[in-house]
Amino acid sequence: MSHDQRFGLQRHARLPGPLRLDGGGSLSPVEIAYETYGTLSPDGGNAVLICHALTGDQHVASVHPRTGKPGWWTRMVGEGRPIDPARHFIVCANVLGSCMGSSGPASLDPLTVKPFAMSFPVITIRDMVRAQAMLLDHLGVGKLAAVVGGSMGGMQALSWAATYPERVARCVVIASTARHTAQNIAFHEVGRQAVMADPKWQGGAYYDDEPPAAGLAVARMAAHITYLSEAGLTEKFGRRLQGRDAKSFGFDADFQVESYLRHQGISFVDRFDANSYLYITRAMDYFDLAEEHGGRLANAFKGSATRFCLVSFDTDWLYPTAESRRVVHALNAAGAAASFVELSSPYGHDAFLLDSPELNRVVDGFLKAAA
Amino acid sequence: MSHDQRFGLQRHARLPGPLRLDGGGSLSPVEIAYETYGTLSPDGGNAVLICHALTGDQHVASVHPRTGKPGWWTRMVGEGRPIDPARHFIVCANVLGSCMGSSGPASLDPLTVKPFAMSFPVITIRDMVRAQAMLLDHLGVGKLAAVVGGSMGGMQALSWAATYPERVARCVVIASTARHTAQNIAFHEVGRQAVMADPKWQGGAYYDDEPPAAGLAVARMAAHITYLSEAGLTEKFGRRLQGRDAKSFGFDADFQVESYLRHQGISFVDRFDANSYLYITRAMDYFDLAEEHGGRLANAFKGSATRFCLVSFDTDWLYPTAESRRVVHALNAAGAAASFVELSSPYGHDAFLLDSPELNRVVDGFLKAAA
Repeated sequence: MSHDQRFGLQRHARLPGPLRLDGGGSLSPVEIAYETYGTLSPDGGNAVLICHALTGDQHVASVHPRTGKPGWWTRMVGEGRPIDPARHFIVCANVLGSCMGSSGPASLDPLTVKPFAMSFPVITIRDMVRAQAMLLDHLGVGKLAAVVGGSMGGMQALSWAATYPERVARCVVIASTARHTAQNIAFHEVGRQAVMADPKWQGGAYYDDEPPAAGLAVARMAAHITYLSEAGLTEKFGRRLQGRDAKSFGFDADFQVESYLRHQGISFVDRFDANSYLYITRAMDYFDLAEEHGGRLANAFKGSATRFCLVSFDTDWLYPTAESRRVVHALNAAGAAASFVELSSPYGHDAFLLDSPELNRVVDGFLKAAA
Repeated sequence: MSHDQRFGLQRHARLPGPLRLDGGGSLSPVEIAYETYGTLSPDGGNAVLICHALTGDQHVASVHPRTGKPGWWTRMVGEGRPIDPARHFIVCANVLGSCMGSSGPASLDPLTVKPFAMSFPVITIRDMVRAQAMLLDHLGVGKLAAVVGGSMGGMQALSWAATYPERVARCVVIASTARHTAQNIAFHEVGRQAVMADPKWQGGAYYDDEPPAAGLAVARMAAHITYLSEAGLTEKFGRRLQGRDAKSFGFDADFQVESYLRHQGISFVDRFDANSYLYITRAMDYFDLAEEHGGRLANAFKGSATRFCLVSFDTDWLYPTAESRRVVHALNAAGAAASFVELSSPYGHDAFLLDSPELNRVVDGFLKAAA
């Protein structure tokens, strides 16, 4: 395996822009960090865009340069997988607002040559999609064979199909939703308040000092609970104690689930920027595809020739099956081609990232059948 | 209405103890703040103990002296209500570890004449119950006509029936559980970490300075989401914006649900001690009635002559119906008399505190039928 295969082709584009934003402002230049796998076919018909989730990155199928961990979706993307560099030209870009090389609050503002921090414009899911479209123009990719995403990646996939219907042949939306509900917003707001309550946050201007690690860790812990099912937590941890025979009658991590959550919080702050967490959760909370189309979700897909595949998991309570079904109803009402399956898994929302032969079969079948 | 009727009989007992604690230590003296309503009958057979929830207090049916708000359960307790001072001698005591007058981390340690802070012993639900038993001894109440509680109050009611079966004629357990699950523990741990991440917490020794209000507010916000159902949040707030026509594209509270949660967090810190929050959540996480009885829940109720009434709400995802059913199965296995009903409500866990004629009918019928 060559260096490039193992680490992917880590690339970076500095696009002149300007990128017009839903909030009214614009961004120029637009930095986009991305990876590609495979080769664009002569007719350009084999491009697959993969969209990542809230805290994901462009390292979908190759080693993460900072953590040394394998790509986050090697179960779906790679040799012999449903999305295969032998057949597809695979693009995965770090979303706008994130912190892995694309423009975000930690980027330098060209005007002040200091990090944007909270002067970075508030962005939307559609803004992320527009930035990805600029990247594809830059790469010479016209029409996508497929756009594929789970969780926030699924929101981008839906937004792609609604914003650039002529550029999307197939759209795969996994464990996702067309809008954030009040409960989704509430959990994100807790996370944002946890970050902003940390005195080290300093109104976002912490880049010369220590980051608000404690606040961000609490935010991650709260969010992490929503990624797992109650049954999954019980199966994995139950009430088992952490390396002890008896309760400590203190406030250390007595239970394994406490220790696990603390670890999730602490390890997260090493790889993620707190301001990016604020901006991306805000973009997700703002997401309501129906609202962008006159209040009727079906309008987002009217006359679309895109073929859609939706997958939900029965124990996902963050974006439950009912939300996928709502999208399918809208697709049906719009006359768009849609397949939908609810898969069974004990692992809640996180199931889309875990080993799921059924998920792989569904995606593989959908991508091949539509070819 | 007299002063005493409006404000209840605010009372305070300083009991010599010692109170032996599950953690191995003991407490002496034991301070208990409580209220009573009605009069103990000559045969002593009309006493009802009401146990409050995590952030509740003794002001069950009379004005809260600090907030000026009416009692927290006037729908259930009062003239013409299922628990009626005209018929019952009603006792409600602030739980051990709390901050409304009973011994807790904010109390003065008699040895140092400073607040205990984190040197207060870690307590259990059973310790709270033992303290209540000491109070009842002090009040001359032998056997309870009923012990009644919702949420953590229900845990105490179950613990009462298991610890002092001969003192409990009837036991009413509403929206509660016989153990904290991994998910329950996880949410509490997020709250504790939010408090402890606040630099103002100072290892608990903040009583001469400002309290860790920001951390406690975040803890309350996270917990509050678990008290409401997804459907209830959608009905109450949906994606409605807060006093604006359009999104702000900033980080103020754009959505009504954000504003509501922030208010819940901020108003909570005015009435609650952060260290008490740590201690009481810990007691709840430690609660597993089966574990205290050789790992078999039915053992907790073996040979019990107490009559039980369990009520759950269909949208309560904090202590879902399955947890009540588990208790009922154990009661059946132990040969104890148990009635059980799942009520329908859109309001999630909080339903037990809200207007519910059905709940009132169930409790009223149970208390009268068993008389």
